[in-house]
Amino acid sequence: MKVGIVGYGNLGRGVEAAVQLAGDMELAAVFTRRDPAAVKIATDAPVLPMDKLDEMAKDLDVLILCGGSATDLPEMTPQLAAKCNVVDSFDTHANIPQHLAAVDAAAKAAGTVGIISVGWDPGLFSVARLYANAALPTGNDYTFWGRGVSQGHSDAIRRIDGVADARQYTVPVKAAVDSVRNGENPELTTRDKHTRECFVVAEEGADKAAIEEAIVTMPNYFADYDTTVTFITQEEMDRDHTGLPHGGSVLRSGVTGMDGEYLDTIEFTLNLESNPFFTGSVLTAVARAAVRLSAEGVTGGRTIFDIPPCYLAETPREELIAHML
Amino acid sequence: MKVGIVGYGNLGRGVEAAVQLAGDMELAAVFTRRDPAAVKIATDAPVLPMDKLDEMAKDLDVLILCGGSATDLPEMTPQLAAKCNVVDSFDTHANIPQHLAAVDAAAKAAGTVGIISVGWDPGLFSVARLYANAALPTGNDYTFWGRGVSQGHSDAIRRIDGVADARQYTVPVKAAVDSVRNGENPELTTRDKHTRECFVVAEEGADKAAIEEAIVTMPNYFADYDTTVTFITQEEMDRDHTGLPHGGSVLRSGVTGMDGEYLDTIEFTLNLESNPFFTGSVLTAVARAAVRLSAEGVTGGRTIFDIPPCYLAETPREELIAHML
Repeated sequence: MKVGIVGYGNLGRGVEAAVQLAGDMELAAVFTRRDPAAVKIATDAPVLPMDKLDEMAKDLDVLILCGGSATDLPEMTPQLAAKCNVVDSFDTHANIPQHLAAVDAAAKAAGTVGIISVGWDPGLFSVARLYANAALPTGNDYTFWGRGVSQGHSDAIRRIDGVADARQYTVPVKAAVDSVRNGENPELTTRDKHTRECFVVAEEGADKAAIEEAIVTMPNYFADYDTTVTFITQEEMDRDHTGLPHGGSVLRSGVTGMDGEYLDTIEFTLNLESNPFFTGSVLTAVARAAVRLSAEGVTGGRTIFDIPPCYLAETPREELIAHML
Repeated sequence: MKVGIVGYGNLGRGVEAAVQLAGDMELAAVFTRRDPAAVKIATDAPVLPMDKLDEMAKDLDVLILCGGSATDLPEMTPQLAAKCNVVDSFDTHANIPQHLAAVDAAAKAAGTVGIISVGWDPGLFSVARLYANAALPTGNDYTFWGRGVSQGHSDAIRRIDGVADARQYTVPVKAAVDSVRNGENPELTTRDKHTRECFVVAEEGADKAAIEEAIVTMPNYFADYDTTVTFITQEEMDRDHTGLPHGGSVLRSGVTGMDGEYLDTIEFTLNLESNPFFTGSVLTAVARAAVRLSAEGVTGGRTIFDIPPCYLAETPREELIAHML
């Protein structure tokens, strides 16, 4: 399978590594809106400007789109689905139906497959929720994120006056997770579920008390959470906080039995040293499914809910059934 | 959807409860090889002899087969797939390919769908292994079972001279599970992974030391494990050990990155108060998928690896995508 990567940030790097590892895939090119000469990639695939995509699309089996959900993907995914099979990681949960409709229309018209919202949330977490709900229709869902870096929250801190650099970790509250694991079906507020840990490098002479106050009272981002702020040096930041770890848990607690007399819990947990490299790996597995579905004549917009799991693995179905079932 | 249950032991009871809960299903009948008059069920569905199946099959959407894997299902599933869509819980891992081939041939010839090896292992555990392998192609798989009742091991103890009753719990070794969770990729022997706890009621005057020796040295069942034997009274057995709890964890530890520099772990854990009621609930969700696939014109043998996850839930696809993705 000939794969193209569109956009080369952290996620693009993650896809590149995963494609290189796949025995059935070849990275045909990386497409960028930047000056291709300025984009150094990890492998020796060509780096090309976006306008090369038009002529190359017909020779590619799938494009993996590594742009942002806010402005890139809503435009880019339907546009490119008109040229080639595509997979994206669109993660604005509230706008998924609308994005899917746009991709579905473009893909159906072009005879391609477009799979959206791939990664771990949305993605593997969503699938875990779905299996758990199918197995335990009567119950409650819980999702905990972290411990992991939230780039949106880190950026929000960096925009505060006097902040030179910042990293924010979302941390699940252990007592809340344990209560769900114990089947206690707790009612949990936002504050009960997660805390936020902020590591901040202040500019020379900045008012640290004012920075801390600005962080902990920030609406939407921090005001509803127990937030801690720790000032560190740029050296400490560079030494201890360059990684992008993440993860979390999806739990469902529910009942079976004629009178709901048996209590069960289902848990799916990820513990990731690199969020973008793992997300890239999931995108790559789903890109394989897009190519296989397309080869079967499927067209239109899809999500991970629509994909038979055996389409994701490089290992052939018969071998999976013999050794993994 | 009109559902028939074939076989009414613990698993049949579990399916009955799950079908009753499903808003899109109706239990049409329970079929039994016993005298129907002697089989009391929890709902008011008719209990019928097996030979009624021939005339009724055409009015049923799916049969959920609740027989045993050793002798019932290898015969029964292909036989009944020739009459109706079927789902079974065939769990002899080594014979799955051969069983699937037999069901596939019968189902293709009859134009039905036959989904085999449904439950949690094989079943949800298998699917967890598959997603984890697709997301992390380079890594190691681990499966831990328990704490839970193994009926096969309990039966093996009951066959020992002087044993009136017995219950065996399989227990994962916490240190081994934690080592995997920590990404240490341990090499684990059978003894490292699980211990076996046996609760035994001895007959009046039986030689307890001889019973204990017979248990802990029993090949295949106990010799390779650290096994504890606790003698209790029948009253204690009836009070504390009537349940059939089970569960366990599937873990995968693997790497991403250009040089495998990032370590990730994926964990799927079940904690079940009733193994047969949960298994019955999973069978019921998969029976729904069988009916939906059949309605689309699919025929032949399938496994849970072949089923798009959204086919399992009563909730329509659009709603799942809007609210669960």
